[in-house]
Amino acid sequence: MVGETRESSSRTITRDEMLEFATRYDPQWFHADADSARESIFGELVASGIHTAAIWRMLDHEIGKDIRWICGVAWEEVRWPHAVRAGDSVRARSEALAKRPSRSDPARGIVEYRYSLLNQRDEIVFTCRSINLIEVRPSALPAQPH
Amino acid sequence: MVGETRESSSRTITRDEMLEFATRYDPQWFHADADSARESIFGELVASGIHTAAIWRMLDHEIGKDIRWICGVAWEEVRWPHAVRAGDSVRARSEALAKRPSRSDPARGIVEYRYSLLNQRDEIVFTCRSINLIEVRPSALPAQPH
Repeated sequence: MVGETRESSSRTITRDEMLEFATRYDPQWFHADADSARESIFGELVASGIHTAAIWRMLDHEIGKDIRWICGVAWEEVRWPHAVRAGDSVRARSEALAKRPSRSDPARGIVEYRYSLLNQRDEIVFTCRSINLIEVRPSALPAQPH
Repeated sequence: MVGETRESSSRTITRDEMLEFATRYDPQWFHADADSARESIFGELVASGIHTAAIWRMLDHEIGKDIRWICGVAWEEVRWPHAVRAGDSVRARSEALAKRPSRSDPARGIVEYRYSLLNQRDEIVFTCRSINLIEVRPSALPAQPH
């Protein structure tokens, strides 16, 4: 429903989880080395931006289970305005911006969301505008000619 | 250097790795359940889009180690034109699009890259245009007045 906003439960991010993800996928020194990270502009270890996106995704499942996702199509305006630090509690927010039927298949729809991950101070730590393909509920399809 | 293109080594993605990431961070049925995934538009299990971004990040480190990253600022035009399937071999490509000094601090620069992850058929499985903050090498700074 366009205009609808949903929020997930919140989850606390541990230093161990940040280090585990960063060591495997994003071994920048300020994500993967707690000692060196003190010399960064952040002053301490911060989560990889892709890790924050993954955490958003995990929490977003809580609030999007009733939607019949087919696949993600695109993200625009991806930003990480604030860093995630160990001990931060984050929650996912989704705002339905627009929807339209697929031009090629009326059983499919294009939906556009503003997704955000917020910390305990309501600061945005990850956000994007996301375009997704979904199945249209049979009851919402136009009547077929007989 | 603007116009420069780099490519990483390639890495084969296993079904176990796809399932592990999806189960933890993106438990959509077509990412996390190999049996159900046969009924999806993909016909089989496919990697989470955020997992493909994480794999790109891992491989990009190989080819960007000499750059003094401060942090990522933004992504635009994020797309996943082809799915990643178990057994695919992927490699990262980076193309330096533009650079300019930071307006607020001449010791910092803004660099813009087109990043892509390609499979063994040279199909793009993840791409974005990325804006990043870097340290300018001391030798590249303008001379200070005496």
